[in-house]
Amino acid sequence: MLQDQLQNKINGKTKPLGALGMLESIALQVGLIQNSTSPFIARPTIMVFAADHGIAATGLVNPYPQSVTAQMVFNFLQGGAAINVFTQMHQLQLLVVDAGVNADLSHLQQPNFIHAKQGMGTANYLLSAAMSEEAVQNCVNQGKALVTAVGTDGCNCIGFGEMGIGNTSSAALILHAITGLGINECVGRGTGANDAQLITKINTLEKVAAFHQLHLIKHHPLQILSKVGGFEIAMMVGAYLGAKAANMVIVVDGFIATAALLIAVELDPTVLLHCIFAHCSNEQAHAHMLHHLKVDPLLNLGLRLGEGTGAALAIPLIESAVAFLNQMASFEDAGVSTALD
Amino acid sequence: MLQDQLQNKINGKTKPLGALGMLESIALQVGLIQNSTSPFIARPTIMVFAADHGIAATGLVNPYPQSVTAQMVFNFLQGGAAINVFTQMHQLQLLVVDAGVNADLSHLQQPNFIHAKQGMGTANYLLSAAMSEEAVQNCVNQGKALVTAVGTDGCNCIGFGEMGIGNTSSAALILHAITGLGINECVGRGTGANDAQLITKINTLEKVAAFHQLHLIKHHPLQILSKVGGFEIAMMVGAYLGAKAANMVIVVDGFIATAALLIAVELDPTVLLHCIFAHCSNEQAHAHMLHHLKVDPLLNLGLRLGEGTGAALAIPLIESAVAFLNQMASFEDAGVSTALD
Repeated sequence: MLQDQLQNKINGKTKPLGALGMLESIALQVGLIQNSTSPFIARPTIMVFAADHGIAATGLVNPYPQSVTAQMVFNFLQGGAAINVFTQMHQLQLLVVDAGVNADLSHLQQPNFIHAKQGMGTANYLLSAAMSEEAVQNCVNQGKALVTAVGTDGCNCIGFGEMGIGNTSSAALILHAITGLGINECVGRGTGANDAQLITKINTLEKVAAFHQLHLIKHHPLQILSKVGGFEIAMMVGAYLGAKAANMVIVVDGFIATAALLIAVELDPTVLLHCIFAHCSNEQAHAHMLHHLKVDPLLNLGLRLGEGTGAALAIPLIESAVAFLNQMASFEDAGVSTALD
Repeated sequence: MLQDQLQNKINGKTKPLGALGMLESIALQVGLIQNSTSPFIARPTIMVFAADHGIAATGLVNPYPQSVTAQMVFNFLQGGAAINVFTQMHQLQLLVVDAGVNADLSHLQQPNFIHAKQGMGTANYLLSAAMSEEAVQNCVNQGKALVTAVGTDGCNCIGFGEMGIGNTSSAALILHAITGLGINECVGRGTGANDAQLITKINTLEKVAAFHQLHLIKHHPLQILSKVGGFEIAMMVGAYLGAKAANMVIVVDGFIATAALLIAVELDPTVLLHCIFAHCSNEQAHAHMLHHLKVDPLLNLGLRLGEGTGAALAIPLIESAVAFLNQMASFEDAGVSTALD
């Protein structure tokens, strides 16, 4: 059996049993995903989905103006953001997707920029659904198609990042809808809300949860997306499903990326078998998401930036895990004595 | 003031305040070490010190035979160990030092192998001091000189690893001597002791602690090394002092490497200003060492291998921290709006 073969290969390496800790579990998992005792990581990629949120224009949930979403997309395309620095340093492909930024970006023709705009931001979910169910389905289909193309291009390991002022609110509402945790436990400071802003954010999102009766649609993930999702989040849901279908290793970033995963896992629980959790975000409710999924992250660096930065920083660890499985000598190869017992 | 200049530069990057968590503290620390708002990492290096321990030949403290130390040195030189894989993957220089392996290695002439043998392993500290005070001083001087040479060669960031069957026992005894913690709290399973072996190890080391009256020499670090140290540990003490003198960034690996640091910090507390702690080892007492030093490690992956593997895995994070400080755009550069308040 492959699992036994992989475990024997790991145990035969010139190190005490289990001495590489979580890297050993990752080597095993990647081997199982690829159905191989010699798995490999090819063309690792970070795909950043950007979109705007109607709620952001109210100023009730976020300390930065909505226009920052488009400004940060420019920054991604000019190479100035954190995700640019980390992907360049760790030799990762970076792709940026306009999933629904509230600005006309059609003139931007950089080769790593993908036009997939579903609208000029979602509607304000204080007043109506964020998007139609048709728009949800379009986003999911688009996300799947984009990742399928990346896979065809040779990538077998992908992390999803996001940019969208206001999107921690969508993520908090999704966490609330799926787990039933109180809004106050699902909400954090996002890009840096102060105490008064945090209280306003909680009060606002409690109104939204009641208005859309989120507690009644726990098992209707596409409805949750329609009521309180974002274009970038819905597209990431499709991206997770597409990555699983393409048999990729999926590197899960922080709070928003994991919110999208909660939805994807409702649609197909086997997506989880492909997921490696990059880090625990400093956005407090991310820990609740990881607990709900019963998973342990690789890093805990107090990051709360999004953009896929946590995933980018974790990929070298995943590459290290795969490399030890392929490249380390066994006790036999190296003529090293095993334990005495 | 440099600290304010660095903090302003970090805060001006296109991200919410503090959103890069521990990477921000590292960027600040490296800037302060190098006295520069544009620090850099050059020729990052892992230096592995190998030596044998007289106690190991008794079989009372370790499940692997003493000969594994020399076998693993061969493995390092043939490229088959975990530290080879990780240094290659992350483009780190790897140097291996024979500090006192119980085998004649004089015929090995690989360019990255350094002959600095202080003896054919230490004496069994159940019966006498592990080494003379003169040998301690020779080791410390040698460690300093080796690191000074690496610095002259262009390296400004170094991590120290070790190989030595039985050396978790020396590390436990050093922790006990310096902090006064009970031997049972200082001892772990090392390379994989079972329950019975662990009890024998604790009983043995309690005898050693009493025999050498370690509780009386807390403030005599060189005496601690003489009584219960190892050649590789004493040489690492000098290496830390040399790295500090050469103004390097020091990446501190696991249990043994931190035991050596405890001694180095007794000799010169300012060494700590240069140290970044790579990880918390799965060797349980490592957490006590980190607590004693009041420091937080970057990684917590359940590693307990030594060889500098934790340091090698953490260096890409340190490089990422320095890269964001140098390469990310500021709000002003990128035309991104700052927070509203």
